[in-house]
Amino acid sequence: MLQKPRGTRDFLPDEMDQRREVEGIMRRIARTWGYREVCTPEFEELELFTIRSGEGIIQEMYVFEDKGGRKLALRPEITAPVLRMYVNEGKTLPKPLRWFYFADCFRYERPQKGRYRQFWQFGIELIGADSALAEAEVILLARDLLAASGISFSIHVGHLSLMRSLLAGLDPDDQKKIRMFLDKKDTGGLAAYLLSQGRDDLSARLTALAECRSLDDIFALTGDLPDRHRIEELFSILDSSGLEYTLNPGIARGLDYYTGMVFEIFAENLGAENQVLGGGTYRLAHLFGGEETPSCGFAVGFDRVMVARGEQPPVPGIVVGVAFTPGGRDWALTVAAAFREAGIRTELSLSGKSIGNQLSQIARSADFALIIGDRERDQRQVTVKNLRTGGQDVLALAEAIQEVSGSEPR
Amino acid sequence: MLQKPRGTRDFLPDEMDQRREVEGIMRRIARTWGYREVCTPEFEELELFTIRSGEGIIQEMYVFEDKGGRKLALRPEITAPVLRMYVNEGKTLPKPLRWFYFADCFRYERPQKGRYRQFWQFGIELIGADSALAEAEVILLARDLLAASGISFSIHVGHLSLMRSLLAGLDPDDQKKIRMFLDKKDTGGLAAYLLSQGRDDLSARLTALAECRSLDDIFALTGDLPDRHRIEELFSILDSSGLEYTLNPGIARGLDYYTGMVFEIFAENLGAENQVLGGGTYRLAHLFGGEETPSCGFAVGFDRVMVARGEQPPVPGIVVGVAFTPGGRDWALTVAAAFREAGIRTELSLSGKSIGNQLSQIARSADFALIIGDRERDQRQVTVKNLRTGGQDVLALAEAIQEVSGSEPR
Repeated sequence: MLQKPRGTRDFLPDEMDQRREVEGIMRRIARTWGYREVCTPEFEELELFTIRSGEGIIQEMYVFEDKGGRKLALRPEITAPVLRMYVNEGKTLPKPLRWFYFADCFRYERPQKGRYRQFWQFGIELIGADSALAEAEVILLARDLLAASGISFSIHVGHLSLMRSLLAGLDPDDQKKIRMFLDKKDTGGLAAYLLSQGRDDLSARLTALAECRSLDDIFALTGDLPDRHRIEELFSILDSSGLEYTLNPGIARGLDYYTGMVFEIFAENLGAENQVLGGGTYRLAHLFGGEETPSCGFAVGFDRVMVARGEQPPVPGIVVGVAFTPGGRDWALTVAAAFREAGIRTELSLSGKSIGNQLSQIARSADFALIIGDRERDQRQVTVKNLRTGGQDVLALAEAIQEVSGSEPR
Repeated sequence: MLQKPRGTRDFLPDEMDQRREVEGIMRRIARTWGYREVCTPEFEELELFTIRSGEGIIQEMYVFEDKGGRKLALRPEITAPVLRMYVNEGKTLPKPLRWFYFADCFRYERPQKGRYRQFWQFGIELIGADSALAEAEVILLARDLLAASGISFSIHVGHLSLMRSLLAGLDPDDQKKIRMFLDKKDTGGLAAYLLSQGRDDLSARLTALAECRSLDDIFALTGDLPDRHRIEELFSILDSSGLEYTLNPGIARGLDYYTGMVFEIFAENLGAENQVLGGGTYRLAHLFGGEETPSCGFAVGFDRVMVARGEQPPVPGIVVGVAFTPGGRDWALTVAAAFREAGIRTELSLSGKSIGNQLSQIARSADFALIIGDRERDQRQVTVKNLRTGGQDVLALAEAIQEVSGSEPR
């Protein structure tokens, strides 16, 4: 028997309904903030991702060749494609651009619980704005979006200048290595590396900084920084917006194109793999051939949000099944069309069996059965059976629609 | 400068809004017919598609290898994946199953106008129903779906038994070759092939059948058929449902798993590539390791529907821009949050420039500007400027929301 590929998923209707509901919530919230949806191809030229993330990412991607021998990769994330699109097609649009996307991505690794080879991201990019307020907007939108999705979470906000100020003066390659350790939260690896470099003093200072929870403590450690005013403004906006968050200078990024604010959101009821959102300020457009463009954004791990949310079957709406005799067929078709026209989910019985048999099948999933025999056909009426109460009425078509659409869904 | 891969597309917000609107319409119509959404992986084991369509399809697909060396293919269509999913996970669900999908597919060929390497399909599968009514349901749903999408189209309905009855007695390989010619509407190739086989008599009979437009004419040519009653019932249901269609016995399918009714829908304002939907009755589940299961369904070429529909920018909804002084910032954040809470698309000005400068930027895309200076902050008020009329009022927050949300979108 053929199976789905390892690490991928099939979604049956109950799960799919819930996913579409949450997707709709996220889309609605993003729109109220002025963000509009864009869509990029499922695959891109391999180079797009190696420019962003380095050659190391190749072994984590699905890579294949074009007919022209060009190397393509299934996208592992969507920020690089969106910025590539911005450089190609969005440069002349009035800035800032507020864009969002909802789409699937791919990673090529051993499948494990909660990590699939095909996974979905909802994300936003705010392109061409360079201010504390722009950074705050992205964080506040993230909060609104996840709150509306119905999960409990905690927000950690940091700023890359803080950690980087402690590394200033080191060789750039060295800085990058240290940032990689920090990004992976590999404190053991970092300590060993710094010891091997004879820099265990730095290890203590980095740890002390990561544990700071106020700007005063932070600037006491780092000294004054060129972007101190902007950092203070960011946190002042967050505070005056009533955001609940943890100031966390320990958040790091291994890659160079992140430039300032960084934030991460963790769901409260997931296990070790509990990060549901990551974001920050970055500059990518110039790497893809455009002008240097300050941007910020975030990506939500949609699948983790669905797990954190737990099973919340959406209100299904009313379902109507139509049972009919052979002689009632044409009237049944007319009745069903009228019910659908009124927006009611209406399923014709297709078995061709007896009315009793059709009814027992309909009762398995529907709220109402419409029974249409020769008498109903002759009178242009509908027998409406309420499957929850057992009550039954013979009504004109318009009344029948009213009866059903006026009832409460289960 | 990096570009999108050849044959793929980026979608900017104006286009994406229209696509999501039509997708929403199709989803809504499918739901009123009792269909529910499913989702399968973006790629499948290569074998799934070669079982369905033969080895020939390999060169039309993007094929790549798994870490385990398994051959995978980006899906060229979604019926086979959905039936694979049915075999894996849906067998015990009460039948018939009414499923729909909306997703992207891939073809690996020279890009040409209107044919992209990544394209979208909206489709439905009605699994486990074997009746004329089931076949009619699928056709009628297709009509409703395309009508609601706002395109003009014509429907052609045929039945494979008709053409096949003329081929009965021929060698099966020969039948298949002839069906392939018919499917591709390659009448020249067919005539040449039949001549080479000394069967030019058949060529004339096939042509005559393809030109029949009534069941009487058809059965006069084919003689009585075992499924004549069912074929008559199908067309009787279509007629009594008021469907406008052309009876077209010339519709053929090259592949063996199509078993009965076939239909195709053509948009009226596209050029040569004007087919927007194809569907029919088939049996596929047993090829994937399940039981033989009568099914029918269709797939809509979503991109062609969008072209046939033409540009119809969706009603955008009201857009509000917020201009503010540094002292008004916190009150501006509160006001913006309240407007969003009321479902209004509200964009904060992020430039940090003068109110005048902010207003001229806002006027480029918004319907209303909210102006928040120190006076508005102190009074807890909002200056609402209607950018269409130029009128301006100083209002309490709740009144301001009322004023804006009560206005008509452009």
